Amino acid sequence: MPRLSEVITALENLWPAARAESWDAVGTVVGDPDQEVTRVLFAVDPVQEIVDEALKLGADLLVTHHPLYLRGTTTVAASTFKGRVVHTLIKNDIALHVAHTNADKADPGVSDALAGALDLRVVRPLVPDPADPSGRQGLGRICELDHPLSLRDFAARAAERLPATAQGIRVAGDPEAVIRTVAVSGGSGDSLFEDVRAAGVDAFLTADLRHHPASEFIADHAHSPLALLDAAHWATEWPWCELAAAQLDEISDRNGWDLRVHVSKTVTDPWTAHAASVTTTENLGAPN
Amino acid sequence: MPRLSEVITALENLWPAARAESWDAVGTVVGDPDQEVTRVLFAVDPVQEIVDEALKLGADLLVTHHPLYLRGTTTVAASTFKGRVVHTLIKNDIALHVAHTNADKADPGVSDALAGALDLRVVRPLVPDPADPSGRQGLGRICELDHPLSLRDFAARAAERLPATAQGIRVAGDPEAVIRTVAVSGGSGDSLFEDVRAAGVDAFLTADLRHHPASEFIADHAHSPLALLDAAHWATEWPWCELAAAQLDEISDRNGWDLRVHVSKTVTDPWTAHAASVTTTENLGAPN
Amino acid sequence: MPRLSEVITALENLWPAARAESWDAVGTVVGDPDQEVTRVLFAVDPVQEIVDEALKLGADLLVTHHPLYLRGTTTVAASTFKGRVVHTLIKNDIALHVAHTNADKADPGVSDALAGALDLRVVRPLVPDPADPSGRQGLGRICELDHPLSLRDFAARAAERLPATAQGIRVAGDPEAVIRTVAVSGGSGDSLFEDVRAAGVDAFLTADLRHHPASEFIADHAHSPLALLDAAHWATEWPWCELAAAQLDEISDRNGWDLRVHVSKTVTDPWTAHAASVTTTENLGAPN
Amino acid sequence: MPRLSEVITALENLWPAARAESWDAVGTVVGDPDQEVTRVLFAVDPVQEIVDEALKLGADLLVTHHPLYLRGTTTVAASTFKGRVVHTLIKNDIALHVAHTNADKADPGVSDALAGALDLRVVRPLVPDPADPSGRQGLGRICELDHPLSLRDFAARAAERLPATAQGIRVAGDPEAVIRTVAVSGGSGDSLFEDVRAAGVDAFLTADLRHHPASEFIADHAHSPLALLDAAHWATEWPWCELAAAQLDEISDRNGWDLRVHVSKTVTDPWTAHAASVTTTENLGAPN
Amino acid sequence: MPRLSEVITALENLWPAARAESWDAVGTVVGDPDQEVTRVLFAVDPVQEIVDEALKLGADLLVTHHPLYLRGTTTVAASTFKGRVVHTLIKNDIALHVAHTNADKADPGVSDALAGALDLRVVRPLVPDPADPSGRQGLGRICELDHPLSLRDFAARAAERLPATAQGIRVAGDPEAVIRTVAVSGGSGDSLFEDVRAAGVDAFLTADLRHHPASEFIADHAHSPLALLDAAHWATEWPWCELAAAQLDEISDRNGWDLRVHVSKTVTDPWTAHAASVTTTENLGAPN
Amino acid sequence: MPRLSEVITALENLWPAARAESWDAVGTVVGDPDQEVTRVLFAVDPVQEIVDEALKLGADLLVTHHPLYLRGTTTVAASTFKGRVVHTLIKNDIALHVAHTNADKADPGVSDALAGALDLRVVRPLVPDPADPSGRQGLGRICELDHPLSLRDFAARAAERLPATAQGIRVAGDPEAVIRTVAVSGGSGDSLFEDVRAAGVDAFLTADLRHHPASEFIADHAHSPLALLDAAHWATEWPWCELAAAQLDEISDRNGWDLRVHVSKTVTDPWTAHAASVTTTENLGAPN
Repeated sequence: MPRLSEVITALENLWPAARAESWDAVGTVVGDPDQEVTRVLFAVDPVQEIVDEALKLGADLLVTHHPLYLRGTTTVAASTFKGRVVHTLIKNDIALHVAHTNADKADPGVSDALAGALDLRVVRPLVPDPADPSGRQGLGRICELDHPLSLRDFAARAAERLPATAQGIRVAGDPEAVIRTVAVSGGSGDSLFEDVRAAGVDAFLTADLRHHPASEFIADHAHSPLALLDAAHWATEWPWCELAAAQLDEISDRNGWDLRVHVSKTVTDPWTAHAASVTTTENLGAPN
Repeated sequence: MPRLSEVITALENLWPAARAESWDAVGTVVGDPDQEVTRVLFAVDPVQEIVDEALKLGADLLVTHHPLYLRGTTTVAASTFKGRVVHTLIKNDIALHVAHTNADKADPGVSDALAGALDLRVVRPLVPDPADPSGRQGLGRICELDHPLSLRDFAARAAERLPATAQGIRVAGDPEAVIRTVAVSGGSGDSLFEDVRAAGVDAFLTADLRHHPASEFIADHAHSPLALLDAAHWATEWPWCELAAAQLDEISDRNGWDLRVHVSKTVTDPWTAHAASVTTTENLGAPN
Repeated sequence: MPRLSEVITALENLWPAARAESWDAVGTVVGDPDQEVTRVLFAVDPVQEIVDEALKLGADLLVTHHPLYLRGTTTVAASTFKGRVVHTLIKNDIALHVAHTNADKADPGVSDALAGALDLRVVRPLVPDPADPSGRQGLGRICELDHPLSLRDFAARAAERLPATAQGIRVAGDPEAVIRTVAVSGGSGDSLFEDVRAAGVDAFLTADLRHHPASEFIADHAHSPLALLDAAHWATEWPWCELAAAQLDEISDRNGWDLRVHVSKTVTDPWTAHAASVTTTENLGAPN
Repeated sequence: MPRLSEVITALENLWPAARAESWDAVGTVVGDPDQEVTRVLFAVDPVQEIVDEALKLGADLLVTHHPLYLRGTTTVAASTFKGRVVHTLIKNDIALHVAHTNADKADPGVSDALAGALDLRVVRPLVPDPADPSGRQGLGRICELDHPLSLRDFAARAAERLPATAQGIRVAGDPEAVIRTVAVSGGSGDSLFEDVRAAGVDAFLTADLRHHPASEFIADHAHSPLALLDAAHWATEWPWCELAAAQLDEISDRNGWDLRVHVSKTVTDPWTAHAASVTTTENLGAPN
Repeated sequence: MPRLSEVITALENLWPAARAESWDAVGTVVGDPDQEVTRVLFAVDPVQEIVDEALKLGADLLVTHHPLYLRGTTTVAASTFKGRVVHTLIKNDIALHVAHTNADKADPGVSDALAGALDLRVVRPLVPDPADPSGRQGLGRICELDHPLSLRDFAARAAERLPATAQGIRVAGDPEAVIRTVAVSGGSGDSLFEDVRAAGVDAFLTADLRHHPASEFIADHAHSPLALLDAAHWATEWPWCELAAAQLDEISDRNGWDLRVHVSKTVTDPWTAHAASVTTTENLGAPN
Repeated sequence: MPRLSEVITALENLWPAARAESWDAVGTVVGDPDQEVTRVLFAVDPVQEIVDEALKLGADLLVTHHPLYLRGTTTVAASTFKGRVVHTLIKNDIALHVAHTNADKADPGVSDALAGALDLRVVRPLVPDPADPSGRQGLGRICELDHPLSLRDFAARAAERLPATAQGIRVAGDPEAVIRTVAVSGGSGDSLFEDVRAAGVDAFLTADLRHHPASEFIADHAHSPLALLDAAHWATEWPWCELAAAQLDEISDRNGWDLRVHVSKTVTDPWTAHAASVTTTENLGAPN
């Protein structure tokens, strides 16, 4: 059985901390390098619900995509919900390791997993990492469909293939537009709008889009339409958990570690229900 | 018939520019103070589609909630989509006036109109304006329901009463929780989370919520549940257009101006379609 | 007849926006890329007086050296004097294009035109643009006189050859000093004092000099005298209008555009009159 | 004979350092508090020429309006022109004391002396000091003429009454406009433009005005003309030297100090000559 | 037996977090509000050695003066020495609470304990807290000796009465100077030099003084000598542990909590040995 | 006899100002480039006591390691202690030149002299200057002992060989630890802790260490012990004065300048006495 320090070295090889954005907080958050690891759980969010799942499962390492503390803290008292997470982890000898923007940029990374879930063929990164000579690492991915689909059909495919959420998929653009190329980015993608424009794709699928950036993005393309698809943040990043778990499985086999590797199926998207407007898409609008 | 300068004086009385947030950009954006005004159109967004509607309608003044330029511009060339708006307005003698956070804080203001649409009784502002001795101006509103509703039923009411949008209403929290008091805030409300917590309400209805703030807001209330409802940004602010139009109508009558006042019914929410996840709310989650 | 977009492409070739200083605001400010251009007016300042001249002349493109909005604006309402300019331009289908520090740095550029007006032979830029391999682009110019002149005579030449203004030429230094080499910079040149010192010239002609920088510049050269000549800002940049107009004329001929190109003769220097001190240069000083 | 510390206490009473702007550097720059003072020289600028005059005169205290070091220095080596001033002063036991914005704001202060030289009646400060209950201290002065003058005649009066300089007076505005009220501010006054506009005066006399602020100030008043007069910076502040010298004389008498108090007549304006444009004011403009 | 939350409420009453400096990080760092408290250890530094002592002692609450994390952290992994502290505390159900600048300012506070150890009579705070109407709270203390001592004798008293450290007491000033009044400040006191000067005392005892501030402080008082005494940082703050323990003991008795309250005697000053210069104080200096 | 400007050129060759840190203030502070130099005094601090020594000695140039004004000043009035220094220097024709971080980085530099005093063999800079191709310039030095010593014995050697001070040497670490390699840095060295850790040495000797950085440095090395030695700031830099004096002597001989070069033996460390704790190193700790 490997020690935590050995497993973390393997995870660091997959997603080197140095590759994370400067504002990010990745790496080991809780855990003793000398403890042994037998069971690992992958999840998107390091919240109490997931920690309780790890505990029930008997995992001694939890790997999440989102940091527990993105900004520094001066307290881990259990009177705070994040401190409660720290107490539960340490009391139960569960380590926590985070791979965030370093996993976004990796090859394969978060957007590769998202593209895979959507059955898209990855062409190249949306924002190639200038430090990567292979040209395959970076944020987001530019993808091709095997055969063209209408926006309506592509949205239906996304709703079907991504993990089910209360929000579903929000779509902007002409439902009959033909989609041949798509940019995808797991998580909040509005900071990549300029790169998407430059890429010349037919659609952009990401999450967490708000009124003003989305409206201006659409308005700015009146003459060269570019569709937007907005999925639940959690749903766009969950496919990476399966990819990452498979990568660690393979490493475990290679090293004879005999790790048990799991992927959490708990939905940590905050939205738990949805109420549709009473009118149909055709007669949307303000009340008469 | 009044001159633009006279109408603007009336609008300034309703929503004084000095009351806007320091980062905001409100007031007259386009127009000659000496031109005459006969017809006014109210809308949420100063986009080309709305300007074309104003033109078709023969309006000579467009009043919007959102600024055309929130950050300063050094060009209004028609090769940009906002510059195209400026050219269309000036070529057709249509003035543009903006009431944004000054209308949010007014009494009655944007969140009063939203509360009205939802059939809620306003108790007080969520963040009272310290400069207002009446205690009735400020951001957001704290409201009471006439009789308690489950979260499920309250969400259904919101979906029914707000202007119909492709996104509908996203809900976080226990669908059976009983809702007696609600905080509402038109537009993006996540900056008000701390005030909502302090207010001790049962639910918060606003727009543009993203994964991280919404998830942390929910996690931080594990022991004293507080529901979230997320509507389309446009839909939460549209009721104000009707309120504001009625206010101007009344002023027109009082002054014998004989203005024709309209409210745009065009949906300027960017989302035009929605694809629901294939599973029901009960079996949401990652694919097996 | 060319479209505005074609003429602007030609102007961009002469003065690429990317070459402007980072704080500058150059390029097209008003106008529709599809409108046709038949008549162009060049001027230093985009003020109402010049716009009225363009209108009277029937120009459909105004090219100025100074930006209309150097800092971003959130309003172009006609109640502001700059908004009035925008309204007049758009109502009358007159486009406005600005070439400022990109024209300063061009070869030939603003200081070349100034040197030409003063009958000086340009040797090299005062501050060569490090991005230009030719070594001929940059701010200011270092020049030689054909034959040495006294400072008094050189000042007289500047007063005679530059466009006449109420201010004339202010001179600092010994009137009998011999001038062989001169640095010139159109517009406000005090930020270039260190480069002028390093250049080892006999005099520096520029505009908008104030008491403290000018006094310290002189004091710092007590042992190696260096004369200063201060002309009206407008007068030092006006020669560029003639140069630029000739450049566009040539392009028009080459493309068979048949443009009518004009240069405004309106003085937009703010100073309209001058009252000389009653004493002569010889008995300057405080009253006895 | 008083010690330097006693004289400085008296000067501090007239112009307390605490009243200076936060960016300013006033007070004693050179000198030993124990040295005796018998002869004092007042001047605008602490330059070598003035220090040499103090030395020749036998002064042991030089009081100037402008700071020697407005920004901090880490060297006073005599290889710099300001360090040379420090060496000359210390070697010759001459102290240097500065009263800058504290003298501007005093009652009477720099702009009172300027108003006096122009034969104007001071009404109140242009920017009253909020810390002064008397309402008489502050920057600039709003003044009345005894009887109205045309702008042309008022400019002629300024040219005649202020110390003679090579630059004379530059004037913007209609020469025939009637001037009844004037704002004056010794030194560079463009930061006060907004206060001048608010004051509703007919003209503003100050120094060091540049093309852009002056042009925009004029353009912004097309419909309510407001004239500008620009004199040499030195000339607008020199009258204060005479006022301050008289104040110290009076204190000396009162204390029986028997000080000899002088005012330097040396012109430290950088401009030593002027070359007028060859055309008259009537046919100003670009060459035909 | 009280719960942690009850004990913390008592500590918060003694040293309210709101009274700490804005840059400080005080309050509960580790621990579950619901755990029971039976034994408490007070110490200056939350280092591993102290945590091990708490563990051996069976303490379930450690109260320290210094924060564990003064700047925020994004990891508590046990591979860092601070993370190791967090792991040990949580694994062993030991809470950690910090009272830092809030304890400095309290009445009685850190400098009161220091004055008590030195047998000084406290007169008033060195920097009174403007928010405290009693005038007794604030940073540092101004004290009187019962009868005057030479600086040599006062230093000897400090060396004898403060906890013994390898560094002892460093002294600056004339050993024969008579000391009647002393300012004291536990911990690093050089930010209080200006207040000490204003207080007019004979000596200042604090810790962590460095060459430049100490030298300039001494040089600036050539004519009104003021002695400095520099003790070990730890030694100046340790007396507060005894004071604070007594305060909590008293609260425990009052509430019938039956707490066992201890004070750590472990020296956490980093310096463990000292090598004196070979010469005596009389012939200090550079080698001949 | 050389002029000051010639001697300064020689000093600049040894310690070019361009090599100083960007926040530093080095070079000539006082003096006339044309004055003659016959006698030079080297010292660590430019304080009045040293200036008086220079005066008594008849020196016309004082070279110090520490700047007189590290931050800029706007006054050199003799009422301040630094202004008194300037007055004394200028009145007595004594120049002041500073070599600070440029002397730290030089080869040989301040830490070479310190290593020499301690009989250490320099291996390489602790922080090599990236601009130096020789690899021998930079901050601090990594050194080897001729034969291993216990920490106790190495501390004793430092106490014996460095100039005697009241503070002596403070030591952290196991007295019996074997020291083979040492990093040294004259002056305050805590900003170099990270480089020391990376260097893998057995001990670090520097000055001005404070509780928090020193404690954390020690705590962070629990498993790979690294000793600290803290000497008086002045004592660690004084050896450089002898080195620098010898360098100038050699230059004087080479140029036939016949300079008299002296090194001040005055101790300018602020600490003039020391009171040891009454207990021995073995029973350090809080009173029982």
